[in-house]
Amino acid sequence: MSMELTMKETIEVIDKELEKLLEHEKKYQDIVFDSINYSLFTGGKRLRPILLLKSCEMFSGSYENAIPFALAIEMIHTYSLIHDDLPAMDDDDFRRGKLTNHKVYGEAMAILAGDGLLNLAFETMIKYTIDNSNIMEDYIRNTKAIGEIAKYSGVYGMIGGQVLDLMSNDVAMDEDKILFMYENKTAALIQASLVSGAILGGAKDEEVENIREFGLNLGLAFQIKDDILDEEEDKEINKLTYATYKGLEAAENKVEELSKKAIELLSKYEDKDIDFLGELTRELIYRSH
Amino acid sequence: MSMELTMKETIEVIDKELEKLLEHEKKYQDIVFDSINYSLFTGGKRLRPILLLKSCEMFSGSYENAIPFALAIEMIHTYSLIHDDLPAMDDDDFRRGKLTNHKVYGEAMAILAGDGLLNLAFETMIKYTIDNSNIMEDYIRNTKAIGEIAKYSGVYGMIGGQVLDLMSNDVAMDEDKILFMYENKTAALIQASLVSGAILGGAKDEEVENIREFGLNLGLAFQIKDDILDEEEDKEINKLTYATYKGLEAAENKVEELSKKAIELLSKYEDKDIDFLGELTRELIYRSH
Repeated sequence: MSMELTMKETIEVIDKELEKLLEHEKKYQDIVFDSINYSLFTGGKRLRPILLLKSCEMFSGSYENAIPFALAIEMIHTYSLIHDDLPAMDDDDFRRGKLTNHKVYGEAMAILAGDGLLNLAFETMIKYTIDNSNIMEDYIRNTKAIGEIAKYSGVYGMIGGQVLDLMSNDVAMDEDKILFMYENKTAALIQASLVSGAILGGAKDEEVENIREFGLNLGLAFQIKDDILDEEEDKEINKLTYATYKGLEAAENKVEELSKKAIELLSKYEDKDIDFLGELTRELIYRSH
Repeated sequence: MSMELTMKETIEVIDKELEKLLEHEKKYQDIVFDSINYSLFTGGKRLRPILLLKSCEMFSGSYENAIPFALAIEMIHTYSLIHDDLPAMDDDDFRRGKLTNHKVYGEAMAILAGDGLLNLAFETMIKYTIDNSNIMEDYIRNTKAIGEIAKYSGVYGMIGGQVLDLMSNDVAMDEDKILFMYENKTAALIQASLVSGAILGGAKDEEVENIREFGLNLGLAFQIKDDILDEEEDKEINKLTYATYKGLEAAENKVEELSKKAIELLSKYEDKDIDFLGELTRELIYRSH
């Protein structure tokens, strides 16, 4: 199957399952579900859940048992965008061509919708674990996957990156700090997706570590590529980026280096079907928008 | 041992363990740990973690294996206060006589500190579960406890209550809505503490359900008592409360009714040491500040 078709099918699964998850009894707090749904179904690329499902499938041939985790990672990604857009943070009025959450539902509801999504992500993973673990191996695998996602989303992961991002206008930045910021702000959730997917697919410890490394290189390349595109499109950027700090050519060389490394790491799995992840990696790195 | 002494000792354990948990390598995101620590160590009563530990102890005679969950519930409580105080929410400058988090660290950092605490709560519980579950029973018990905490903190629990609280000035409120708001905003985390403690202490299903009911009555009585005290102290209240809606006398009767029911439910455990929880219940309900 072509990558585009596989992508389309996987996104359909994710969207359908997300919709089911957000079904709820009509109760007094309805409005927070409206606010959550508004941001959850706003044309996101579903990149992280796709990586999670496809990483699982690569090791086990199927991704059925990874779906709740894929939904969780998308919910975590979405909550981070809602909070990131708030006036006190990036103060963005639009995202993907639509009004941001707080512009529609107000700041207070946007804060609660974000909190609710983060909480629901864990609620979903732990409920699945309780309801679907039949033997001790299931518990080990599921809790390990939750543990990876928790660590990469938290103060030692994505939130840590956001903190540095926030301060990047006020403190002296250097290459080390910029890469630390990218590793946490962007690569962390991509690593969380790939690593938890691999664990759920039954990958061996060594394979998990390899995938972790792959995710780091892919995540950094992805973020620097983003900077380059922003720069080339003359987007108004108020923050220091790798591309503005090192210059366009150095940034392009860095993307090249990182993606070569990523593909190299992936190629270790010659016995598995790595076509999809390989093609997606190239697509993310060589995209022109 | 007297209740006061037991309280003091338990609080010392909680504070020491929280400090240990917040120790971290010096890295670029340091400031978010400062912000988290500021709100975590600001003279909180540690009511919820005490309830969790003591509920566990009542069933198993010890609370050692419940400590990470007690820290988690305090982190969740603290994050909810940080976000609740934000300008877009209650807009409070002071809490417990100290400046609120955003007044010291700014709104953006307060949002991230809250997000970080919620995430760290789950990170802590899942890490403990992974590292300390030796047999399948351990996994079942630990994941069930996390599941209860997740549910009660989320959109069907505390966050749901916050949503209604937020809207309570704009929509027509009635007794049913006020009690729904209290059940979720206040009783939910108290129930989460008592129920997860009981599960970790090895309580039987029927006992867990009884404790859940106890927590609901205690939580509602606690919140209405709060309203009554606010009213009596002539505190400036901008929101509709049970006491302002039904009048002081009706509120006092309701507290009486709920606490009688709570003590009744607790008394079913004649074979266990219920002295502490019984005395604490009376203390919370008959307090004068």
